[in-house]
Amino acid sequence: MGPHPAVAAIRLAVRRVLHDILIEQTADRAPQEPPSAPLVLVACSGGADSMALASALAFEAPKLGIRAGGITVDHRLQPGSDLRAEDVVLRLRSLALDPAESVAVTVGREGGPEAAARSARYAALDAAAERHGAAAILLGHTRDDQAETVLLGLARGSGTRSLSGMAAVSGASGRYRRPFLHIDRQTARKACMAQSLPVWDDPHNTDPSYTRSRLRHEGLPALEKALGRGVVEALARTAQLSRDDADALDVWAGQAEPSVRDASGLLECAKLYALPPAVRRRILRRAAIEAGAPAGSLFARHIEEVDRLITGWRGQGAINLPGKVVAQRRGGRLVIRQG
Amino acid sequence: MGPHPAVAAIRLAVRRVLHDILIEQTADRAPQEPPSAPLVLVACSGGADSMALASALAFEAPKLGIRAGGITVDHRLQPGSDLRAEDVVLRLRSLALDPAESVAVTVGREGGPEAAARSARYAALDAAAERHGAAAILLGHTRDDQAETVLLGLARGSGTRSLSGMAAVSGASGRYRRPFLHIDRQTARKACMAQSLPVWDDPHNTDPSYTRSRLRHEGLPALEKALGRGVVEALARTAQLSRDDADALDVWAGQAEPSVRDASGLLECAKLYALPPAVRRRILRRAAIEAGAPAGSLFARHIEEVDRLITGWRGQGAINLPGKVVAQRRGGRLVIRQG
Repeated sequence: MGPHPAVAAIRLAVRRVLHDILIEQTADRAPQEPPSAPLVLVACSGGADSMALASALAFEAPKLGIRAGGITVDHRLQPGSDLRAEDVVLRLRSLALDPAESVAVTVGREGGPEAAARSARYAALDAAAERHGAAAILLGHTRDDQAETVLLGLARGSGTRSLSGMAAVSGASGRYRRPFLHIDRQTARKACMAQSLPVWDDPHNTDPSYTRSRLRHEGLPALEKALGRGVVEALARTAQLSRDDADALDVWAGQAEPSVRDASGLLECAKLYALPPAVRRRILRRAAIEAGAPAGSLFARHIEEVDRLITGWRGQGAINLPGKVVAQRRGGRLVIRQG
Repeated sequence: MGPHPAVAAIRLAVRRVLHDILIEQTADRAPQEPPSAPLVLVACSGGADSMALASALAFEAPKLGIRAGGITVDHRLQPGSDLRAEDVVLRLRSLALDPAESVAVTVGREGGPEAAARSARYAALDAAAERHGAAAILLGHTRDDQAETVLLGLARGSGTRSLSGMAAVSGASGRYRRPFLHIDRQTARKACMAQSLPVWDDPHNTDPSYTRSRLRHEGLPALEKALGRGVVEALARTAQLSRDDADALDVWAGQAEPSVRDASGLLECAKLYALPPAVRRRILRRAAIEAGAPAGSLFARHIEEVDRLITGWRGQGAINLPGKVVAQRRGGRLVIRQG
């Protein structure tokens, strides 16, 4: 008798990603270098998604000559979080993951509680990967997480890139991998039950002061009620399609950019005007970021205003952008620089 | 004392669109042709959005030498709908719109109740525009309608084009104009109240058997509760950005297509492979539609399967697409034709 279908599904998802990692390792290795067993870590909160991921990694890695380890991040946001982290480490050890360790972080305030926790977490995971020489870190984000991320991007209203959700491969030299982006949360939970793995529900996941939690427990269910059960899948597919579209348009903007600059490197309005708006605005956004505008504070409405220097020129004055960057039109050229 | 701010807002929106229409009329006219007063119609259900639109058209058109008329469509879906339509005609006449008429339609069943009502309605409006020689028909869709349309597109999960909502200008030679895409529903309602215009609430708008109605009364409010009050605006902005992105990628696909066909016109897999996925899939979609697949039945998953003939070739058999179209790979070429 084979494993429970949910267990089979999570193992297949992890096996595919481990294969990819092995192929890349082989490609990167110099011919004379002896093959060594790469280490793959799982980031595990003790919740169902990442416990399922840890169990699948523990099962699949040895078969492929990969060493499997696990890291849990103690965010120190609740009393007793250190004990819980130790408990997760014990669970990782009981899956035979080695190393299995807890790293404590201090969560700041920048960008709100969720963003601050996230940046502290990734910094700790990056450090752990360096310390152990890990080839990759697996993250347990599911299709449901992806759907939520697309809706969060939609709420920003900043277009195709912000709808593209989380990448299957991200981080410095593709360190982070998300094998479960096509697996739903329910499957991860079932896989834990089928393997009698204890799971821990993060209280943040149900805390209504967190946007993602409100989305999960109220927003998405209401959308599903209005639009039908396929919404999560549709959102996840939107992420992939939007990512491909945004990538292609970035390529176009990158290729077109040199052709719209004059000999002194200034952007020529007439040449920009001839480009499709989607390409032109990407070039403008890029130029503003190059001039020092922080990408995270540069919104669609800023770029629209700069764009009107080209498409709706009526002698406007200089436009102030975030990061003290100023955009103005002078003699048919755009001058975008820190003022 | 000027008009109520809501009235000023709707008039400005209409004035801008009427200006555009006048400029296009002038551009289209032969030099020797005498200028004649163009006719602009408003499609009016008697609801707040289209009554506000009718009132703004009645106010602005004469100042620009434009004749203003109104059409109401009797969908004959409820008993007494003919009397209601006559009542709307009286209201249009009281705004001095001329012609002001009601046209009765028969709503079929194809594509579900909303799609069937929509196609009957547009057919009747097209016929009315032809009959009266109208330069344009104004439609009262608001920013809220646009937000709902984006969410409906999101639920289809078919990418950037399906997120692009309704166009400000659409239909044969740009006949349909939507001046209120940046005006919220509340402003339209306030403008009616400020002008003491009676409005009629369409029972379909609150009928939970309609997807759009469920979205309006349950889905969107829940999303706003989770994500904040700016969701409607963010969705409307997403529509515009997505439309621009989809347009640019269509241009790219159109330009790239001839270069990936061999001398006999077949698509060459190696050349397709070299294109960004977003461009390649658009070329594949276009080829399937040219071969006879109905655009409305061709989903992202169909195109993904055809794409795997290029990116994941392992000797797959022929792929069946809607409209009896078959896609297969033969000798490094894609053959897509009706089987």
